[in-house]
Amino acid sequence: MPTLPRLAFASGVLGFATVLGPAGLPAQVPAARTEAEAVAFYVDAHRREITAELLDFLALPNVAADTENIRRNAARLVEMMEARGIRTRLLETDGPPMVFGELPVPGATRTILFYCHYDGQPTDASRWVGHAPWDPVLRDGNLESSPETFALPAEGPIEDDWRIYGRSASDDKSPIVALLSALDALEAAGLQPTSNLKFLFEGDEEAGSPHLDRLVREHEDLLVADLAVIADGPRHSSGRPTAVFGVRGIVTAEITVYGPTVPLHSGHYGNWAPNPAEALAELLATAQDEDGRVTIAGWYEDVLPLGPADAAALAALPDEEEERRRLGIALPEGGGRSRWEMVTLPSFNVRGMWSAWVGDQARTIVPDRAIASLDFRLVRDIQPRQQVERFVGHVIRQGYHVVSEEPDLATRLGHPKLAKIESTRGYPAVRTPLDDPAARAVVEAVREATGEEPVVIPTHGGSVPGHVFPDYLGATFVLLPIVNPDNNQHSPNENLRLGNLFSGISIFAGVMRMP
Amino acid sequence: MPTLPRLAFASGVLGFATVLGPAGLPAQVPAARTEAEAVAFYVDAHRREITAELLDFLALPNVAADTENIRRNAARLVEMMEARGIRTRLLETDGPPMVFGELPVPGATRTILFYCHYDGQPTDASRWVGHAPWDPVLRDGNLESSPETFALPAEGPIEDDWRIYGRSASDDKSPIVALLSALDALEAAGLQPTSNLKFLFEGDEEAGSPHLDRLVREHEDLLVADLAVIADGPRHSSGRPTAVFGVRGIVTAEITVYGPTVPLHSGHYGNWAPNPAEALAELLATAQDEDGRVTIAGWYEDVLPLGPADAAALAALPDEEEERRRLGIALPEGGGRSRWEMVTLPSFNVRGMWSAWVGDQARTIVPDRAIASLDFRLVRDIQPRQQVERFVGHVIRQGYHVVSEEPDLATRLGHPKLAKIESTRGYPAVRTPLDDPAARAVVEAVREATGEEPVVIPTHGGSVPGHVFPDYLGATFVLLPIVNPDNNQHSPNENLRLGNLFSGISIFAGVMRMP
Repeated sequence: MPTLPRLAFASGVLGFATVLGPAGLPAQVPAARTEAEAVAFYVDAHRREITAELLDFLALPNVAADTENIRRNAARLVEMMEARGIRTRLLETDGPPMVFGELPVPGATRTILFYCHYDGQPTDASRWVGHAPWDPVLRDGNLESSPETFALPAEGPIEDDWRIYGRSASDDKSPIVALLSALDALEAAGLQPTSNLKFLFEGDEEAGSPHLDRLVREHEDLLVADLAVIADGPRHSSGRPTAVFGVRGIVTAEITVYGPTVPLHSGHYGNWAPNPAEALAELLATAQDEDGRVTIAGWYEDVLPLGPADAAALAALPDEEEERRRLGIALPEGGGRSRWEMVTLPSFNVRGMWSAWVGDQARTIVPDRAIASLDFRLVRDIQPRQQVERFVGHVIRQGYHVVSEEPDLATRLGHPKLAKIESTRGYPAVRTPLDDPAARAVVEAVREATGEEPVVIPTHGGSVPGHVFPDYLGATFVLLPIVNPDNNQHSPNENLRLGNLFSGISIFAGVMRMP
Repeated sequence: MPTLPRLAFASGVLGFATVLGPAGLPAQVPAARTEAEAVAFYVDAHRREITAELLDFLALPNVAADTENIRRNAARLVEMMEARGIRTRLLETDGPPMVFGELPVPGATRTILFYCHYDGQPTDASRWVGHAPWDPVLRDGNLESSPETFALPAEGPIEDDWRIYGRSASDDKSPIVALLSALDALEAAGLQPTSNLKFLFEGDEEAGSPHLDRLVREHEDLLVADLAVIADGPRHSSGRPTAVFGVRGIVTAEITVYGPTVPLHSGHYGNWAPNPAEALAELLATAQDEDGRVTIAGWYEDVLPLGPADAAALAALPDEEEERRRLGIALPEGGGRSRWEMVTLPSFNVRGMWSAWVGDQARTIVPDRAIASLDFRLVRDIQPRQQVERFVGHVIRQGYHVVSEEPDLATRLGHPKLAKIESTRGYPAVRTPLDDPAARAVVEAVREATGEEPVVIPTHGGSVPGHVFPDYLGATFVLLPIVNPDNNQHSPNENLRLGNLFSGISIFAGVMRMP
């Protein structure tokens, strides 16, 4: 059932508006006591339509490399935005287009640029339970408690604790739908945004945002804004509304270590032919100590120490004991430091590792190669290239000859320890000072919209290419994550709790109306 | 063209026989000077039929776990054997049946049991070039030199250097066809085997021979023999005819190291949530030193030192510099010791390693688990269970809690270092003394049949469950490998050089006729 409190409203700032109620019948909105209540009333009355719009959007496969489908997503976005009166334009790149939109407000003196991405991570359909990644379904809770799936019912209540399971349900299509629904809610309440609004929806964020940097520089005049609100990532694990003042940068690398030219019979050649899986294991083992501290020379060199304001903000964050237990983690890395403190440091993560086969597919061979896929998260002021070079230097110091392309036979025969390292371009971190006035105003708007005290996080562990907004546009960076922390982002069975979508609409409407 | 030397035969021991010549026309066989020449003449005259029989046999998928197809293989084998007058019988197990056959020879005082296996390793079809694993094709050389494939031509010469590409082309269906063709050749030459012959063809050798041990013990009376000739594995890398007096045993294990219960976003959780791929790398790195020597306590404890005869035999083996260069190996493990010396030691091999995804499929996550599949090769007198226990003990000494089943949440929360280890039953090694008279007689028969000096190898690196023949039947063990060393056994693009098949027939015919 809708949760709007049915109060007698004493001093409405708004007139009456006619909207559709829960049963699809017109409902009289009492003159709301606050704008936030008016928005919440609209959202509750339109849960079905809002959920349906998101489900339709999620049914479009959206891996950036899937050219045809990613274009269908962009075209759908244009339709969805123009239906709200947004002037849209595709900003073309070598890859998927960016979808840009503008909603100028006469007399407004501030411009807010909202950024989301409409592409999603690649999927391994075999690990999704009960449905395909782009065949979104509902569950009455999470997968563990409620394995049964169902379609959006034509009538009856739509509960906050229901979840949508599907690729990009949380990352990052729901914030897009929340932003557009916020405009609907304001219009239904007879309210106008107080700022000029711009929207930038990226189509290859999950592929590492290879075009964003250049595109923002090229379209500086079009995109210029005072405040950049990035809508991505999960709320704090307490579930409280969250505002994030910084994000880590990222660069990814892949290392291939070579064994014999072909996989060899492990009986005839084992412990004579060098085993690349064992060599890779030995190499990776040199990169971190027992506590997970990275031992690559210079890794932490450019890390700025935490100031008193940062330390205070970190200390004020709710404890995550529940989260640790849910994830089955007996002893986190970091020697007792909180997750939020750990993400103020650059990371070294083995995101994937592969050599030959395991399980039922295992064969008794010496593999011909072993691969580790790595991601390095960056903090202010570490440049991506710098961190990759530190890694390459470390591998060389372990006695390896490092190449950037598949080696030929002569190269193999010339170097007992041989590795190929490839890397992406990556992007650096971004950090807004904790006392920045524009960012504090956003926090205030979130508090107003939700009636809860927001969790303020100095820096998030995740990466969005937010540095482009302050660096090229002079905009203050704030990230407003709305989705549930247990959303399985980037993994199989990604999901969104519907209550988070609905309150996200209130949050964005509040930001659009902030004084 | 057939390579039979067309000599004038001075003192034939055989009469004339009518066989089909290369063009399919009846050919007059001159009274051959030697039995070996008579056999070789038959083989050259029947290259097409012999090759066709093998191709047909290879078209049957033969993974042991594929119940329906593995039965089709057994049924085909029975047909092939009965066509040669062999009395056959299926010896049933819980899995694929063993195919047994018997060919008693009146007056013979010795019994030879020939052992092969008719199942093959699982395949990854995506890594086979130009055809599917069970759609065997011919090439005019190896894959690198002759990528083009063709079907067996209806006429024209069939060259020694042609190869069949297909799963089990070398391992281990070609020895079966060679044995049966040897009977045809002897019959065509009017010759009878000098020993009673038995045949035992196993259907789940590649699955670790889970039934062979019990079956041989149960059917001791049926299988009893003086000499067990195992036809499996490749010739020495010099390409010379080869006799092997021992093989290593094997046991496999799989270790799973646990991270969080689900894969986590590497930005939000990286370097706080323990990474199982990094933990597995650290663990594997402790198992061997820089030179590849296994550092697990007790690993080499029961290794018998090499005697003077072993050392002499090892010293007599041809050098393998060519092989090393072909395989792109800059520096083999073992500090300069030969491959043949290294395989007199027990091995520790990481045959596969897996955690999450790499390459295009990589996702920026902390994986939930990392797996290494291992095989341990055994030498006399190390028992499989003993070696697995040494490995488990080593993992425990690295601080791990070891379980044998998927751990629940409480187990995960109770143990910062947690690993699951599963293992197979395995089997021990076998070793025939280098001066054993029956085994020396086999070497002599190979020399006679081929006109070349055989390479005698004290022990092979690969594993076949040959221990059952001396241990339960009292038979002398000898392994006669016939296939080409570069056959990609156990790997994609497995192949057989046809010349090896044809000379294998001569070798087996010689053994069947040895005095």
